[in-house]
Amino acid sequence: MKLVIGDKNSSSWSMRPWLVLRHFNIPFDETLVRLGQPDSKEHILRHSPSGKVPCLITDSGNAVWESLAIMETLAELFPQHALWPREPAARARARSISAEMHAGFADLRQQMPMQIHTHAPGTGRTPAVLADIARIEAVWQDCLSRHGGPFLFGDFGIADAMFAPVAMRFNSYAPDLGDTARAYAARLTALPAVAAWIEEAGNER
Amino acid sequence: MKLVIGDKNSSSWSMRPWLVLRHFNIPFDETLVRLGQPDSKEHILRHSPSGKVPCLITDSGNAVWESLAIMETLAELFPQHALWPREPAARARARSISAEMHAGFADLRQQMPMQIHTHAPGTGRTPAVLADIARIEAVWQDCLSRHGGPFLFGDFGIADAMFAPVAMRFNSYAPDLGDTARAYAARLTALPAVAAWIEEAGNER
Repeated sequence: MKLVIGDKNSSSWSMRPWLVLRHFNIPFDETLVRLGQPDSKEHILRHSPSGKVPCLITDSGNAVWESLAIMETLAELFPQHALWPREPAARARARSISAEMHAGFADLRQQMPMQIHTHAPGTGRTPAVLADIARIEAVWQDCLSRHGGPFLFGDFGIADAMFAPVAMRFNSYAPDLGDTARAYAARLTALPAVAAWIEEAGNER
Repeated sequence: MKLVIGDKNSSSWSMRPWLVLRHFNIPFDETLVRLGQPDSKEHILRHSPSGKVPCLITDSGNAVWESLAIMETLAELFPQHALWPREPAARARARSISAEMHAGFADLRQQMPMQIHTHAPGTGRTPAVLADIARIEAVWQDCLSRHGGPFLFGDFGIADAMFAPVAMRFNSYAPDLGDTARAYAARLTALPAVAAWIEEAGNER
């Protein structure tokens, strides 16, 4: 199994399935395509029909693209791991917030782009971004209080991986956050799989 | 089970899970919130924590929001129906293109908004929109040739429902399309569930 990803410093979509694979100790090979180069798209298209990363190449050689589709496929391939919550209502909620992240929060993503090794507190606090952040805090608060933490549905899973790049953005741009969100972002940052990604992002420079 | 949706003429996201429920004869109640009214958001928030439609309320009273999360939840609740393709590689591909639709094609969505009863050929053909359309045609062509049609993976399923609003846009704005895409969009339009949605959209005026 192979995961095709972009730069670790900036490819927030690549980070998500990589974290799941790493956290659950699922063996995989990694192919990293440097983004923003004249031939980046050509390289990616060799693996991924959409021309975008991430893309999972299964052992049968099939390409699976888009982070959510990769997550669902991994959840099916590795039922021994609770990639999604085992309880149906929690699983439906985990899918709702993961899909909300997948398609939404465009202002946050645009104004506070993931650049792990950038530290620029105060940047990007437009009203639309603050509304995105308020919604994210509400989602986190709801899940953490329903399930008791430390992660959104108890143990770390796909939903946490979907929001991990948001924690990276909060680390870089330091928007005002409530205690619950700040503590959860810190727990995400300290998770060994996340720490490994951050370290490897540093080695890219 | 209840599905909270927006106006049928314009709520492309609402159309998707509604089509799946209707096509597979899954009984459900419908709550329609007129969008663009001063109190639309307040009405939606009574059902949907994200403030957006569509939102499924399960028989246990749980809210499931975002079309893809609703689709995955329906696929789990009704395993007797092939909402996703039964074959794993086809299912992974169906999820990839569905997630690509869920998060992508922003230019098409913005420049050719779904307005089922609008007929405005020629509108919206920016280079970015044409690139989106070219990618959609490639996706359709690939799936139809792999699986032999008449729908993307043989019989109608979630992936087709995800692209049905694109067919509505093509009907309204009439961009140049290859024969394969034009014929597939026509088959989608003629599907009884889609025809029912279109008719009910007409009754809204």
